[in-house]
Amino acid sequence: MGQVAWKGMFMSLFDYKTEKYVIAKNKKVGVLFRIVQLSILAYLVGWVFVVKKGYQDTDTSIQSSVITKLKGVAYTNTTELGEKLWDVVDYVIPPQGENVFFVVTNLIVTPNQRQGTCFESYGIPDAVCSKNTDCTEGEPVIAGNGVKTGRCLKSGPVNTTGICEIFAWCPVEKKKRPKIPLLGKAENFTVYIKNSIRFPKFNFSKTNILDTDDDSFLKNCRFSEENHYCPIFHLGKIVSWAGSDFQDMAVEGGVIGIRIEWDCDLDKDASECHPHYSFTRLDNKFTEKSVSSGYNFRFAKYYRDASGIDYRTMIKAYGIRFDILVNGKAGKFNIIPTIINIGSGLALMGAGAFFCDLVLLYLIKKSNFYRDKKFEEAKSSTKKPIQVKVNGQKKSSSLDTLDHLKHLQSVET
Amino acid sequence: MGQVAWKGMFMSLFDYKTEKYVIAKNKKVGVLFRIVQLSILAYLVGWVFVVKKGYQDTDTSIQSSVITKLKGVAYTNTTELGEKLWDVVDYVIPPQGENVFFVVTNLIVTPNQRQGTCFESYGIPDAVCSKNTDCTEGEPVIAGNGVKTGRCLKSGPVNTTGICEIFAWCPVEKKKRPKIPLLGKAENFTVYIKNSIRFPKFNFSKTNILDTDDDSFLKNCRFSEENHYCPIFHLGKIVSWAGSDFQDMAVEGGVIGIRIEWDCDLDKDASECHPHYSFTRLDNKFTEKSVSSGYNFRFAKYYRDASGIDYRTMIKAYGIRFDILVNGKAGKFNIIPTIINIGSGLALMGAGAFFCDLVLLYLIKKSNFYRDKKFEEAKSSTKKPIQVKVNGQKKSSSLDTLDHLKHLQSVET
Amino acid sequence: MGQVAWKGMFMSLFDYKTEKYVIAKNKKVGVLFRIVQLSILAYLVGWVFVVKKGYQDTDTSIQSSVITKLKGVAYTNTTELGEKLWDVVDYVIPPQGENVFFVVTNLIVTPNQRQGTCFESYGIPDAVCSKNTDCTEGEPVIAGNGVKTGRCLKSGPVNTTGICEIFAWCPVEKKKRPKIPLLGKAENFTVYIKNSIRFPKFNFSKTNILDTDDDSFLKNCRFSEENHYCPIFHLGKIVSWAGSDFQDMAVEGGVIGIRIEWDCDLDKDASECHPHYSFTRLDNKFTEKSVSSGYNFRFAKYYRDASGIDYRTMIKAYGIRFDILVNGKAGKFNIIPTIINIGSGLALMGAGAFFCDLVLLYLIKKSNFYRDKKFEEAKSSTKKPIQVKVNGQKKSSSLDTLDHLKHLQSVET
Repeated sequence: MGQVAWKGMFMSLFDYKTEKYVIAKNKKVGVLFRIVQLSILAYLVGWVFVVKKGYQDTDTSIQSSVITKLKGVAYTNTTELGEKLWDVVDYVIPPQGENVFFVVTNLIVTPNQRQGTCFESYGIPDAVCSKNTDCTEGEPVIAGNGVKTGRCLKSGPVNTTGICEIFAWCPVEKKKRPKIPLLGKAENFTVYIKNSIRFPKFNFSKTNILDTDDDSFLKNCRFSEENHYCPIFHLGKIVSWAGSDFQDMAVEGGVIGIRIEWDCDLDKDASECHPHYSFTRLDNKFTEKSVSSGYNFRFAKYYRDASGIDYRTMIKAYGIRFDILVNGKAGKFNIIPTIINIGSGLALMGAGAFFCDLVLLYLIKKSNFYRDKKFEEAKSSTKKPIQVKVNGQKKSSSLDTLDHLKHLQSVET
Repeated sequence: MGQVAWKGMFMSLFDYKTEKYVIAKNKKVGVLFRIVQLSILAYLVGWVFVVKKGYQDTDTSIQSSVITKLKGVAYTNTTELGEKLWDVVDYVIPPQGENVFFVVTNLIVTPNQRQGTCFESYGIPDAVCSKNTDCTEGEPVIAGNGVKTGRCLKSGPVNTTGICEIFAWCPVEKKKRPKIPLLGKAENFTVYIKNSIRFPKFNFSKTNILDTDDDSFLKNCRFSEENHYCPIFHLGKIVSWAGSDFQDMAVEGGVIGIRIEWDCDLDKDASECHPHYSFTRLDNKFTEKSVSSGYNFRFAKYYRDASGIDYRTMIKAYGIRFDILVNGKAGKFNIIPTIINIGSGLALMGAGAFFCDLVLLYLIKKSNFYRDKKFEEAKSSTKKPIQVKVNGQKKSSSLDTLDHLKHLQSVET
Repeated sequence: MGQVAWKGMFMSLFDYKTEKYVIAKNKKVGVLFRIVQLSILAYLVGWVFVVKKGYQDTDTSIQSSVITKLKGVAYTNTTELGEKLWDVVDYVIPPQGENVFFVVTNLIVTPNQRQGTCFESYGIPDAVCSKNTDCTEGEPVIAGNGVKTGRCLKSGPVNTTGICEIFAWCPVEKKKRPKIPLLGKAENFTVYIKNSIRFPKFNFSKTNILDTDDDSFLKNCRFSEENHYCPIFHLGKIVSWAGSDFQDMAVEGGVIGIRIEWDCDLDKDASECHPHYSFTRLDNKFTEKSVSSGYNFRFAKYYRDASGIDYRTMIKAYGIRFDILVNGKAGKFNIIPTIINIGSGLALMGAGAFFCDLVLLYLIKKSNFYRDKKFEEAKSSTKKPIQVKVNGQKKSSSLDTLDHLKHLQSVET
């Protein structure tokens, strides 16, 4: 018997077993089920395949290199600095031309600072004093420029408040920022952005520069909606595309993000794979808090005089930082994701059927009739073993024998 | 015939076909199956939906900009440098205030280097010589500071070992690092970190700064567990949060990672989306190999004397580099992922059923009885289709009636 | 009645319901189905588990820090610069030793530039003039070095073309690049790359340096195919591994990507987790357009003479930029992904069965016979529940036979 079962099992390996279905001639549920099926199909085709390109193997580990180069000069004539010409070397920091660069647009210059003692600058709470003991010697001024020397300097009579003397780079910076940006002309500078990318998995590489033999092209062109393959950008335009005004931004500075998206469908021709540029302002311009808005930093040029003493010119530079962010993905047809997606899509149908069953078996009028049809009991009897067993077995055994006969036959044939 | 088949097919389009089930009144397997179902359900609800928020469409392409600004001064008085005050411009490299900045904590200064000839420094194997021919002219010293001039300089008598003379920036650096960090006071410096983020897909932007009108807030506050919206950090605290000691680290230098995580559930209020900071030491502090532990680099300030000859002050700077890494994701309810996750969760039930079938059909006692009930044979004979068809139908219909009788019994009882 | 249904529902909660199957003794479809099952199984085991390690929970948010340090000196002797020794401080920009560093290999030096007036350089279209009015005062020269002063300087007689005089850093740079790289010897420089990584989820950290006590190891070793744990690279080798020639590249410059991949299977021993290096050239070397090939930038050293006037030495540096990109992932066994993957794999079988059903029911010869076996009709009657139930069964079974008769007819016709 068990042996037969095993034999049957082995034989049945190459029978095809298919679920037995009950056809419920109920158009409501039938239509419902078709709708579910269609929507799953629509999702599968429309979303998974057309939108998400589920039939493709994708590579998102893009290898990118960015080279930037600015062009442009600006002439300024201020009482402080006199006649001065600014070229790339002067206003681009750092000079390397990587994917992050900063263009100076406004300045506070504090020339000829030397180490020594002087007044701390006004408006620093910690530096206000009325007597020398308020300026503990050697103690740094909180949020200040130096360490206190222990002397409280007063302009007026004795009982007025004074300011601590400090040891620092003197004179200290005067806190006033030009209202109109010194280098507002930077708006007309141009930046050349060269971006070479590579998708290692597909060994596909491309650059954002038009592959032309016409040398003059790169000399004269400017990037625009029409001309996506000219990588030369007008700084003013970049800022306006990011939704800001250059002259406003130039006063306090800020950060602009230049995003280059490569979304390449390598099933199409390589020439179909284009870079997409988007420009956003990355620092939150909405806040008006002086400390938190804008972008600036201090740096210095160090000199040494004949007597070998160092002095420096400190510059507080306001300006616009440009961050170039490159990302992208490439896709190419591949059989495995295709099958997986189709398979799991079909598997979803099971969920649909499950849902419709609920409706059929528990929600509609004749549900319990369908329940009877759908569920066929297989009770192996319980009480009065022998007695019932007989009937039970009689029926079932008669079945069994029938089946087994069939088996035998099938074995014989 | 084929036509009839097609007609049937078309008609059946709007019938609902549902699998026929055999009810195995076997509580063991039944309970087992319920357990499986419940655990799948638990997984679906608990893991997929509550933990992984499977009902949300997510955006991980965070746009972030970081602006950093250090504050603090330190006064040093060494024989080498004399009285010196260090302010931000002196000790922060690079000055731009980007997401990576370096704070000098210890120095080896080699002033007034000029191009010329001098001793190679001690302890460089390749520079040890006994006669001039050991110092091939023009050959660079391996791991050294210059090219050999061809002369072997000896301090003592002839037969002692000497050191090659080299053409280099002279004098060469003396290899001794202050045991106590020159700028240990850097521990009390503060850094202001401004991080503005944006999730383009949901057009949601936020910053890590409390949106307050109180100007004094940002002047006085310090970041702490309680005060997560004050972006001003005490360097010493950062290092201790990363599990290191500032003064130890200051001697040899190191790298600290400041991680800002934005995990935003945009189904909740925007004010629920907070930055989470974590601090880790990125360079492996455990190794003690001099060459591989700590962090330092050399740079120089170049000067030109009256006679137009360049000279430089070379500085070997030890210090702490802070890398600020921002990442995050935002999620918002979306119907498509919700359906997909529910669907595939239900599809999993199929796997559960498959597993329980194995138990029912092959592992329990009455398995072969259930096997007979579950599998109904459909053998089509080879010859005389009609004839056999009738018997085939007779059997199966008789079966059906039998089943229906059973049903009546089960309903009546 | 409904109550009975509910009772039945409750009771049935702990019955196990299993699909009823029809065994189609059709070896063709049977074998087909087995093939489908086997291929799904093969995919599940081979691809999901062995290749993709689907049984693992993965962490891709790698925390990485890179410290680089170059070694090497080069001696040059040119008419322009005279005898000069280049050490790390001179040729590495920026000096910080981060994951991006630039090595100067070729130079155009323009010494002693001062703000003043001079000729614009040749070959700039916008600067060509025939009379003063061609040089509008104060207007910057497009793609030039300064602003026009309003004078048109001519070398020859009146009617020849001249060049606008400009206010700029004078003298302007002479556009000629040495054909043989000035610092070709940089090929023999070495770079020490220290990369420490950490996988926060598994709290696993490692470094790319052999954990040895032998100090001399790091002094003498060189990275090679055999010696993956020596992090000291020969620049020339790096370039050649990237498929370029150093001396060629040195002339115009370029960008090399050094990729460090960490793919760690934490189920194995930690010592099994190795870094994998790959070297690629990131700038597109194929283009020959002067403006777009190679890599160079300008920077200056600023000096101040005794009279307090600034002057500078401008340097156009050609060289090789090295970008070090670290990425990786770690995996560790976890029960949840394991179950999910097995489950969804089995769910795929449903798709296979669906496909085979199509074959069985519509493509093979005896398909409509199998259709009859697979689909059992359930047409329900309408009024007088109980009463109907009884003859409901009678009727329906009679119906069944009726249907079968219909079928027979349809078969006969």
